[in-house]
Amino acid sequence: MNRAQLIATIRQKESFLCVGLDTDPQKMPVGVTMLDFNKAIIDATRDLCVAYKPNIAFYECLGPEGWRVLEETVKYIGTEHFIIADAKRGDIGNTSDYYAKTFFESFACDSVTVAPYMGRDSVEPFLKYQDKWAIVLALTSNPGADDFELLHADGAPLYQQVLAKVSSWGTPDNTMFVVGATRPTMFTEIRSIVPDHFLLVPGVGAQGGSLAEVCKYGLNKDIGLLVNASRSILYASSGHDFERAARNEAMKMQEEMKALIA
Amino acid sequence: MNRAQLIATIRQKESFLCVGLDTDPQKMPVGVTMLDFNKAIIDATRDLCVAYKPNIAFYECLGPEGWRVLEETVKYIGTEHFIIADAKRGDIGNTSDYYAKTFFESFACDSVTVAPYMGRDSVEPFLKYQDKWAIVLALTSNPGADDFELLHADGAPLYQQVLAKVSSWGTPDNTMFVVGATRPTMFTEIRSIVPDHFLLVPGVGAQGGSLAEVCKYGLNKDIGLLVNASRSILYASSGHDFERAARNEAMKMQEEMKALIA
Repeated sequence: MNRAQLIATIRQKESFLCVGLDTDPQKMPVGVTMLDFNKAIIDATRDLCVAYKPNIAFYECLGPEGWRVLEETVKYIGTEHFIIADAKRGDIGNTSDYYAKTFFESFACDSVTVAPYMGRDSVEPFLKYQDKWAIVLALTSNPGADDFELLHADGAPLYQQVLAKVSSWGTPDNTMFVVGATRPTMFTEIRSIVPDHFLLVPGVGAQGGSLAEVCKYGLNKDIGLLVNASRSILYASSGHDFERAARNEAMKMQEEMKALIA
Repeated sequence: MNRAQLIATIRQKESFLCVGLDTDPQKMPVGVTMLDFNKAIIDATRDLCVAYKPNIAFYECLGPEGWRVLEETVKYIGTEHFIIADAKRGDIGNTSDYYAKTFFESFACDSVTVAPYMGRDSVEPFLKYQDKWAIVLALTSNPGADDFELLHADGAPLYQQVLAKVSSWGTPDNTMFVVGATRPTMFTEIRSIVPDHFLLVPGVGAQGGSLAEVCKYGLNKDIGLLVNASRSILYASSGHDFERAARNEAMKMQEEMKALIA
């Protein structure tokens, strides 16, 4: 999916919601398979969200069977949603090539989350595909973000160096950044460095970030945000009414989004 | 494998060689399967090396079948070598938990390479397992290391901040660091920060680093190095004599190592 298609989808659905498929067998209702759970969540939220983000760790830990569930899930989502492989990959060039191949060719995802630590040749293989995206970690939503991302590196916090350098390697048509919702006032500074890029925003919901605050500081002329919620939607109910509960939760977010971009 | 066992193995074999299993179907002799290629390489090098490092990207890109090859390869290596899942993982705590589970429980690897960008809660799940290891990226061997790893961050290069902080989260019994061979003089500074830790050193061989230089600045009282070679061993010959060529190349390295630690 390219940028124009993504923006059109957001406008049409009045939603910039991304549903994170952090599907955890330990949190699912008893007797439901991982694939059936994913399909039910997708059916319950399809019209309310513009993106799905399978968290690869939850599939990988099941070995070959997990990869089959991931494959089937991505197929079931289809081509009308923006699909993010949340994999946090990144390695030397010849290895990143293979990671890009995995998620863009074998799985037909639209994008992969990428860790920037190893620099340019670790990111560029993800930028070579037409209408595919690297979503590079900038300022994450977890407590550990303080350890390195916020260090002052040659005059600016490291995450700002990442925004500045990585945005010069690609374009707003093939690069997004991860910026957590837990530090919303920092979006002002971020928007001064990457005014046009889409930002993938985790941390609303279970991690406590505020959607209104994120929008106040982070929206741009094309909306420019994909706000993710995973656990708050997937596990809104731990019972067999999980589909209805997930839909209600997604709908609440979509309605709030609609009001914020009206 | 714990630290004492690793050191004993190195002393006994007079080798600190790690063979990187970056098994690339495009570079293998025609008609050989990936698993058979790995088994042949392992048979040809088993007595000469102390560690194997499958590069997960090369398996992952084949989907479920690739994970099966990885599983079989790890089983075939057995328990007498230190096994490194070169995966460069790292995510928020609840997700890193699953990555640790994958490589330590499902695959019974001894260690995983971990990207430090997201900080403490992204690394700690890999430090919770008895006799298992996180091998955290510090100064990598690729050109992109200049982009962020060498930025001056609060008074010291970022990679030194990583060494200092991460070494305080774990111990030399459960933490190693990746330090590329391509900048050998930097090992002096590195050893002043982490005198006791093992360092996993890629970049000798295809990437041009010198084993003698690495040893000159990097050896410690327990050896403290695992030097990796991948392509220079695996693809020493592109023909059906690849086993013999791989063994010759590994033997050359082991002999050089033996002389350097004599």
